[in-house]
Amino acid sequence: MKHMNIGILGMGTVATGLMTLLSDNKEIIERKSETEFQVTKVLVKDMNKKREVPLQQEVFTSKIEDIIDNEEIHLVVELIGGIHPAYEFVKKALKNGKHVVTANKALIATYGEELEGIADENGVYLRYEASVAGGIPIINTLKNSVESNEIKEIMGIVNGTTNYILTQMSERGLEFEEALKEAQDLGFAEADPSSDIDGDDAMYKIAILSYVAFGQPMHVDKICKEGITRISKEDIQYAKELGYTIKLVATARKEDHHLEMMVYPALLPMKHPIALAQNEYNAVVIKGNGLDDIMLYGKGAGALPTGSSVLNDMIEIAKNLRDQKKVYNRVKTQDPLLVDNKGHRQYYIRLDVIDKPGVMGQLTKIFGEHGIGLVSVSQLKRSEMVAPLVFITYETDQKMMKEVLCDIKKYSEVLKIASILAVES
Amino acid sequence: MKHMNIGILGMGTVATGLMTLLSDNKEIIERKSETEFQVTKVLVKDMNKKREVPLQQEVFTSKIEDIIDNEEIHLVVELIGGIHPAYEFVKKALKNGKHVVTANKALIATYGEELEGIADENGVYLRYEASVAGGIPIINTLKNSVESNEIKEIMGIVNGTTNYILTQMSERGLEFEEALKEAQDLGFAEADPSSDIDGDDAMYKIAILSYVAFGQPMHVDKICKEGITRISKEDIQYAKELGYTIKLVATARKEDHHLEMMVYPALLPMKHPIALAQNEYNAVVIKGNGLDDIMLYGKGAGALPTGSSVLNDMIEIAKNLRDQKKVYNRVKTQDPLLVDNKGHRQYYIRLDVIDKPGVMGQLTKIFGEHGIGLVSVSQLKRSEMVAPLVFITYETDQKMMKEVLCDIKKYSEVLKIASILAVES
Repeated sequence: MKHMNIGILGMGTVATGLMTLLSDNKEIIERKSETEFQVTKVLVKDMNKKREVPLQQEVFTSKIEDIIDNEEIHLVVELIGGIHPAYEFVKKALKNGKHVVTANKALIATYGEELEGIADENGVYLRYEASVAGGIPIINTLKNSVESNEIKEIMGIVNGTTNYILTQMSERGLEFEEALKEAQDLGFAEADPSSDIDGDDAMYKIAILSYVAFGQPMHVDKICKEGITRISKEDIQYAKELGYTIKLVATARKEDHHLEMMVYPALLPMKHPIALAQNEYNAVVIKGNGLDDIMLYGKGAGALPTGSSVLNDMIEIAKNLRDQKKVYNRVKTQDPLLVDNKGHRQYYIRLDVIDKPGVMGQLTKIFGEHGIGLVSVSQLKRSEMVAPLVFITYETDQKMMKEVLCDIKKYSEVLKIASILAVES
Repeated sequence: MKHMNIGILGMGTVATGLMTLLSDNKEIIERKSETEFQVTKVLVKDMNKKREVPLQQEVFTSKIEDIIDNEEIHLVVELIGGIHPAYEFVKKALKNGKHVVTANKALIATYGEELEGIADENGVYLRYEASVAGGIPIINTLKNSVESNEIKEIMGIVNGTTNYILTQMSERGLEFEEALKEAQDLGFAEADPSSDIDGDDAMYKIAILSYVAFGQPMHVDKICKEGITRISKEDIQYAKELGYTIKLVATARKEDHHLEMMVYPALLPMKHPIALAQNEYNAVVIKGNGLDDIMLYGKGAGALPTGSSVLNDMIEIAKNLRDQKKVYNRVKTQDPLLVDNKGHRQYYIRLDVIDKPGVMGQLTKIFGEHGIGLVSVSQLKRSEMVAPLVFITYETDQKMMKEVLCDIKKYSEVLKIASILAVES
């Protein structure tokens, strides 16, 4: 049996899950990898904090050098999160000939290609399955199981926090602020939830998936991104009446030589496969020209699911070493695609209008004059004077949408453009 | 660029799909595998049949020796199906130092371990992703992406034909015979549908999944199997009213040192993840002690999805050769588990009884006397004299079920035990 010494950076939720699995599944891991993993050093901030993990006190250190400059350590697991100093630590570890497994999406989406290059140069592995969608092996699947296909699209619900909030808003009629507060109380959302609710977390994840699927550089800055803060319970209710559910969707779509990467709240038909993902669950669809569409579904976060992905990367590295496989980290790049986000989609537009005969007809006519076809026009509720009108369009692009909305605003019976959301089919 | 000569056995649906992908995705395949695949020989029965594939006439042969004894061929794709002579052909090809990719579930479920052993001895690869669930990379996922987990259960809808029939029965109120006839007319079912509707196809597939997931010998003969021929439209209708859908389910469940492998029609709650699979779609849930549960969903059959899995295996082999990886085919076996099928499940029992007061109470009492708890008792319809009573039990085992049914039969108001089905939660 081979032996591998592990250094872990950080001892938070995921690291605790990893420690549990290393202990509970020791026999399975050793049988499959023919390798005994030993946690030799753990970097922590607070040396005095009491921790519920079966490690001797001398394993803990507050000095990074004890790990990344330690010749006895073969593999570093980076679980401190954030870009700095994780970037510097990982880079140094790779240069020192250590394999690295990380769950850090911000790091990989920002410096992944550079770090993979450094890993290749140093003949060591860099793996990051846990950086996207927790326990779902989406990166492994894209790297190894769909290579016979031209990938056309990746579409997923990859942020558990926003999905939890939207599910609670939908099931219990909560407003966004109420659902967020509750998610924070239950530990599903951070005290500062901005990275999740503004869509940054999903943006990092779709950048990584897009890189792996399309062999394109990770252009985080080119992703068109919108969060869920302006979703109201009214929109969720109206969407439901029309047969849709609202989800924060991340997509990367290839068409000819163009690539569109977006994160946005969208209306999904109730029967859409990824609509299955409720609360903390994630789901990702891969569309290819051979397999048509497949979906992976599972828990997108949590100590054990995410720890399980980290540990699987460690086992994969151990197996590759056992099999004396030549090291390959970098994704084979394709000819560069032109990244543009035309937002060619169906749209849901909710207007508050003065409730009187003829208004619906007039507005419908304006869409027609702009060449935008409508799937449906619905007045879902009547109140005194003000009526909400919901339009669902056929596919159109953002430019045409802007123009029609400009004309709609001029129409005096329109009190407010209450919301505009994409609709997926 | 490396070069790999391919011999294909058979030129049916899947082979045609494979040919399409080899041509359409040529650039992608060569970039990812750094290998050029060339179809050098194809075994066919009828040399005179006109075929819509871009191959010269001299590529076709009716002699198996032209492929398995041909020193220029590096990899054999077996797509003739059935156990014999596929077994003899694959064995000879492996012994002659050729890699083999197959979509043949009956072959792998019966001789898979022996053939993997021969492949290992000869330093060549044997791959069979396409043998289970068409385009869904379930074998790759079990082999490579969940190794950090103790797998507890595999549960799936893995037969597209029966799923198409059950979906049509449910959506359109057809009887089994009508739905089967229609599936045959549309090409979703064979002229002789017995392998699908009797559950043999699903049995082979769960044997393979169980082998890969649990490292246990492939005991096809130990699988408890039942098909869908006795499912009536009444059961589907009553199930629907109670919030369930009826699917043909294949499961392999580990509990302590026991393994249960079964194929059976079951009531699934509408919201169960695999209930998403309608018509020709398949879905498989993997339960592990780390990842909790993940599901893979996609098309379970068809030329392109299945061809896509065959081609992916070919690419994997080419990449392994490029990376000079040591060959490993055999699944690492565990200590043998005791295979027993106690059928410890919830049950749905439909009785036809004489419609008079007190009967429901009497029958409910009999369940209680046998220590079987009931989730619900429903009289879903009244007709003249005869009423259908549906009982849903809490978990119980088959032995207790037999005993209670024996007592129920003695009760004179019971005209018929119309059906008994398992219920999954």
